[in-house]
Amino acid sequence: MKKEAVVNPWEVSGEMDYDRLIRKFGLKKLKNLPEIFQGNVLFRREIIFSHRDFDRILNAIKNKKKFVMMTGLMPSGKFHLGHMLLTQQMIFYQRLGAKVYVAVADLEAYSARQKSLGELRKTAIEEYLLNYIALGLKPKNCEFYFQSERSGDAKKANAYYRLASNFSRYATFNEFKAVYGEISPGKMNASLLQAADMFHPQLPEFEGRVPVVVPVGIDQDPHLRIARGMGSRYKDHDFIQLSSTYHSFLPSLRGGGKMSSADENSFIAMTDSPREVENKIKDAFSGGRDTLKEHREKGGNPGVDVSFQYLKMFFEPNDEKLQKIHEDYKSGKLLTSDLKKILIKKINTFLKEHQKKRSRAKKQIPKFLYKD
Amino acid sequence: MKKEAVVNPWEVSGEMDYDRLIRKFGLKKLKNLPEIFQGNVLFRREIIFSHRDFDRILNAIKNKKKFVMMTGLMPSGKFHLGHMLLTQQMIFYQRLGAKVYVAVADLEAYSARQKSLGELRKTAIEEYLLNYIALGLKPKNCEFYFQSERSGDAKKANAYYRLASNFSRYATFNEFKAVYGEISPGKMNASLLQAADMFHPQLPEFEGRVPVVVPVGIDQDPHLRIARGMGSRYKDHDFIQLSSTYHSFLPSLRGGGKMSSADENSFIAMTDSPREVENKIKDAFSGGRDTLKEHREKGGNPGVDVSFQYLKMFFEPNDEKLQKIHEDYKSGKLLTSDLKKILIKKINTFLKEHQKKRSRAKKQIPKFLYKD
Repeated sequence: MKKEAVVNPWEVSGEMDYDRLIRKFGLKKLKNLPEIFQGNVLFRREIIFSHRDFDRILNAIKNKKKFVMMTGLMPSGKFHLGHMLLTQQMIFYQRLGAKVYVAVADLEAYSARQKSLGELRKTAIEEYLLNYIALGLKPKNCEFYFQSERSGDAKKANAYYRLASNFSRYATFNEFKAVYGEISPGKMNASLLQAADMFHPQLPEFEGRVPVVVPVGIDQDPHLRIARGMGSRYKDHDFIQLSSTYHSFLPSLRGGGKMSSADENSFIAMTDSPREVENKIKDAFSGGRDTLKEHREKGGNPGVDVSFQYLKMFFEPNDEKLQKIHEDYKSGKLLTSDLKKILIKKINTFLKEHQKKRSRAKKQIPKFLYKD
Repeated sequence: MKKEAVVNPWEVSGEMDYDRLIRKFGLKKLKNLPEIFQGNVLFRREIIFSHRDFDRILNAIKNKKKFVMMTGLMPSGKFHLGHMLLTQQMIFYQRLGAKVYVAVADLEAYSARQKSLGELRKTAIEEYLLNYIALGLKPKNCEFYFQSERSGDAKKANAYYRLASNFSRYATFNEFKAVYGEISPGKMNASLLQAADMFHPQLPEFEGRVPVVVPVGIDQDPHLRIARGMGSRYKDHDFIQLSSTYHSFLPSLRGGGKMSSADENSFIAMTDSPREVENKIKDAFSGGRDTLKEHREKGGNPGVDVSFQYLKMFFEPNDEKLQKIHEDYKSGKLLTSDLKKILIKKINTFLKEHQKKRSRAKKQIPKFLYKD
């Protein structure tokens, strides 16, 4: 029997049945996307597979109207390949003309992780922002901010915190409990701030009433549901409801679950050496058979093979080449060790280039901070 | 049998036994106050009767060191005589050299009272601030601010809201429940903001590490207890623990309980006409006997007589005269109707003068707003 998957913001385990999640959460499948989306591997291969209210974003793009792409980061641990999923969407939308808002959830992390705001700030800049820049995020049309220090403009700062506070009028403990299970003052406060992160771009002090898309991993939908509820009931401003898209996870090296900073053996960090990458991929969960003979006869399973997934999500943008690898692995022609060699080479080529870009990115950091 | 008194921030009823409250809340009696305090009716007559950690305020006064007096207002309904208790303390401490912080708890009111921030702001300015000015509050050494708009200086605004948010790490729902009973997201959020109101003057963005005294009615002590707990556990700044003093209530016109904006028949507003004052005092609860004959024989009870209490707290600053009224009323020589006549005249003389000051005060309002 299949183990029931657990999917919430604190745990992702079991085998994913994304169709079931779509039905359970009341999402819609992404389809008939315009040409420009087809050029993006994540959309074309349905890594980003479902949405809520995404039509108004498509309309904004079609009519060349202003829109915001909003996301956040929790400054914990190392930046790894899993983080690239969102980063690539940030860059994609920024190139499409979106204004990109990136919230450093340092106040949330402060209450959850028992670190000081100073440490959290350092991690956010040196791990996250630096990699965003190296991957292509531009300072123009980007608001990179800290929850603990929203703006150097007092009107903006007051408006943002006022909104977070006001949202407390429009929520009940039962809602928080229904969505999150256990709830603490810190979690509740984080939820109010998060809703403010998502809605505040629409305030007159910021962009005014424009559509906002929040791309998230499917496990983050509870945050969207809570925020949508508060936003729809809010009386002092007529918010446009949030749009959101959902992507599947970059699997953990162990197979199953997602690549997570909390688990050293689940991820490949952007700072890993070629040797580390080689060792990690060699140890990664595969869809191969127990013996060479059996593999040659029955073929491997690319659907659960971690290396194949990484190629699919990031490292083999050419559909035909990917298709060939898929077929050869499934038929048994391609061995697990050879599949892994392909991936190791691709990752190390990418990381070598990325690490160069990262050192060049350092001098750009000030352009993202204190822009007000 | 005496009815057990109920005293919490949402209800004050029954006969007060202040000694019992002092023991129950773990407060200390105020005694051996310096000469300057003896000149103030509220201290001399022990209307302000107990404290926590008040010694460090006395030391600051003695050594001419900086200190802050912090208070707040809930912008609901009309400003009435009951509000004068705190206002007179604001002015007393300001003259002693304190910097006075006044928080308009509009974010708290927003979630509790279902009004818009615009309406709440208007009430705060036109009812509260205007009367503060007319009673003698000066713009110098005063920070009058709104929770919804802490400062025109972004560094200050960010620091204040950051503190409120960070406090959520140092509180548990059980604590909130133990102190408040019922708790909602709005109440919890208000409690975090309130703790920030009390502690933020000590942040480097404000006054730095100086002692802060928060004078409150005895019913407000739960707020102090919650804030003290969070402040003492807070890791990112070494706060000096709050000092607080406690005053008894100005009794409701009905006798018992306190004068409250929520009950039209409990208060005398600063805008009441002489005729309204006369009618209200004539109807007020008295300590007189049922018949004139009985009153002459057995005497009245100034201890429960509302009119006598108002004279004691505000309108008869001369101790000898007050003592004479006390004796004459107790002996039966002074009738309730005559006692009320004395008070009516005093209040109307006061209000006539106050209303003049109030119209002159209007032009001073801008000096209190947007000082940053």
